[in-house]
Amino acid sequence: MHVYHDQLEVRTHGKGLYEITDQIKSKIDKSGIQNGTVTVFVQHTSCSIVVMENADPSARRDLEEFFERLVPEGADYFAHDSEGSDDMPSHIRMVLTRTSETVPIVDGKMQLGTWQGIFLFEHRRTAHQRKVSVTTIGE
Amino acid sequence: MHVYHDQLEVRTHGKGLYEITDQIKSKIDKSGIQNGTVTVFVQHTSCSIVVMENADPSARRDLEEFFERLVPEGADYFAHDSEGSDDMPSHIRMVLTRTSETVPIVDGKMQLGTWQGIFLFEHRRTAHQRKVSVTTIGE
Amino acid sequence: MHVYHDQLEVRTHGKGLYEITDQIKSKIDKSGIQNGTVTVFVQHTSCSIVVMENADPSARRDLEEFFERLVPEGADYFAHDSEGSDDMPSHIRMVLTRTSETVPIVDGKMQLGTWQGIFLFEHRRTAHQRKVSVTTIGE
Repeated sequence: MHVYHDQLEVRTHGKGLYEITDQIKSKIDKSGIQNGTVTVFVQHTSCSIVVMENADPSARRDLEEFFERLVPEGADYFAHDSEGSDDMPSHIRMVLTRTSETVPIVDGKMQLGTWQGIFLFEHRRTAHQRKVSVTTIGE
Repeated sequence: MHVYHDQLEVRTHGKGLYEITDQIKSKIDKSGIQNGTVTVFVQHTSCSIVVMENADPSARRDLEEFFERLVPEGADYFAHDSEGSDDMPSHIRMVLTRTSETVPIVDGKMQLGTWQGIFLFEHRRTAHQRKVSVTTIGE
Repeated sequence: MHVYHDQLEVRTHGKGLYEITDQIKSKIDKSGIQNGTVTVFVQHTSCSIVVMENADPSARRDLEEFFERLVPEGADYFAHDSEGSDDMPSHIRMVLTRTSETVPIVDGKMQLGTWQGIFLFEHRRTAHQRKVSVTTIGE
């Protein structure tokens, strides 16, 4: 049993879902771990990690539109807006989704279903460089 | 320290919460692990894993009704509907809840609170066979 | 590789976010583990564990207000209200957020981003004593 830590840098350019499945696979390959789990943790409070349908782009667009309506920018009761109208909604969207995901690894591969991909869900309008910590534990 | 992987198949017959706590307990017993964690991961993007109140069925019905209202079928902006009006809402409900849950194991038992059960939350109308991966890590 | 379990007791006095980052750090220090993960799991179905912005209190107040509006007390279709009008909303808010969070540990420290704190999100009006299980796995 051992632990292998690594880090991804993900460049985002506005709100939306950015797939990182392949980058995580590379880190697991580097770890040499065949059986265990990988924990993917994003070190920010204005974007999320989610598992999502990776085949049909329209599913991702509908998801983004849903969140635009559920947590609209500029609600009149928001006090936390020093970084703009997308600031507070980004924190709420993060809390409604996830900061981390843990996925089983069997025979060196993540046990994702056929349509599952791992995505960074960016909630800010402007370009960002996002840090994602990838921790593989196993044997 | 070691890793034990196993799989559950859960038959669902329409939207709702299906308790799987006992099946997970059985897998932990089979693992022989006394102290560590269990990660329960569902390999689909149209159902979820949640911890929920397991005593009063009315709490589960209210939860289901809340999600029917929060993410209604047939929103006019949904483009992803090739599998029917419950297709896109199922992905959104999954993102709003969880794909996995990690629970501590102490002395061979999950450290669940008195009223906590682990549930597969099905978001599709028709019958499905769901794969749930159960990974126990510990000593 | 080893496992270290410990428990926090968190006193809450009404709805809101209670930071527990420092208490978790103390448990990791006690574990002696330098590299691995910590899983923070709350043993209740009417409060949550979330990672949230820890600098500006107004961000937390806006988040609380958002949840008051998204899951209002006293919806006319709630059947589960034996413990009061905040009973059923507390379970829904828990399902919309998280029961646990897993954070990487590198060189004895949680790999939290600059603005990330770990919070217990209380959903009940009255005072509660909450049990949080802290499991550190690593080497």
